[in-house]
Amino acid sequence: MIYVDDREDGKVLEMFAKTGLDVEVKRLKCGDYVCDELGVVIERKSIDDFCGSIMDGRLKSQADRMLEQYENCFVLIAGRIGDRKTEINENCILGMMSSLVMKGIHVVCLDNEEQLVFFMKRIFERFTEMNGGEKK
Amino acid sequence: MIYVDDREDGKVLEMFAKTGLDVEVKRLKCGDYVCDELGVVIERKSIDDFCGSIMDGRLKSQADRMLEQYENCFVLIAGRIGDRKTEINENCILGMMSSLVMKGIHVVCLDNEEQLVFFMKRIFERFTEMNGGEKK
Repeated sequence: MIYVDDREDGKVLEMFAKTGLDVEVKRLKCGDYVCDELGVVIERKSIDDFCGSIMDGRLKSQADRMLEQYENCFVLIAGRIGDRKTEINENCILGMMSSLVMKGIHVVCLDNEEQLVFFMKRIFERFTEMNGGEKK
Repeated sequence: MIYVDDREDGKVLEMFAKTGLDVEVKRLKCGDYVCDELGVVIERKSIDDFCGSIMDGRLKSQADRMLEQYENCFVLIAGRIGDRKTEINENCILGMMSSLVMKGIHVVCLDNEEQLVFFMKRIFERFTEMNGGEKK
């Protein structure tokens, strides 16, 4: 079972629900998409969310919480750095991305939410396969 | 010391040489940028290289070689999926990205070569710090 945070964007959640994976919505303490059996947590962000969460320090604590509780941590970003509307230096963004990577978090940037949802689907499917079964 | 493959693009190599890291160019058997002391290997690709190497099967063997020889493996992609000129289905690209991630390779897509070079610089610097010193 994949739990999705009840504050997740309605449109993205709808797309994710169509992937065929078993999904339940509830309030999560950590991450936006989690599967406890697989030890997977995903924090999904638009590029502007990502920039905002660097600036207010939220990202650092979110990352630490993910790493404390899950083995396989992902920060997935939709949108390009060049498209950001947030006033933040490009090197700060790249620096934070490298810092997350160094902590062991996978940081993957996709063009848009559609790509991101498909990528999440593949990640959950592959972890399920690796885990040897149908733990949807 | 960071070794760069002698087939690396001249413009990117020139940008990387300006980062101030110690660089030597030679023919590499695996990866485009490697640091043996830090156990880091980076395969740098434009989005079209990335797509091409999925289609001809090169990427899979490159990834396997990296994983055999280095602890910290990166595939860094400049350019976004939507920018590709290669005729390959978007889901194939996303599928391959998720497959590399599942093998333990960090896959990071940046907007352009400038961002990619800065990201590489930070990665090498952080591994050096983590390793406790000035192993440039």
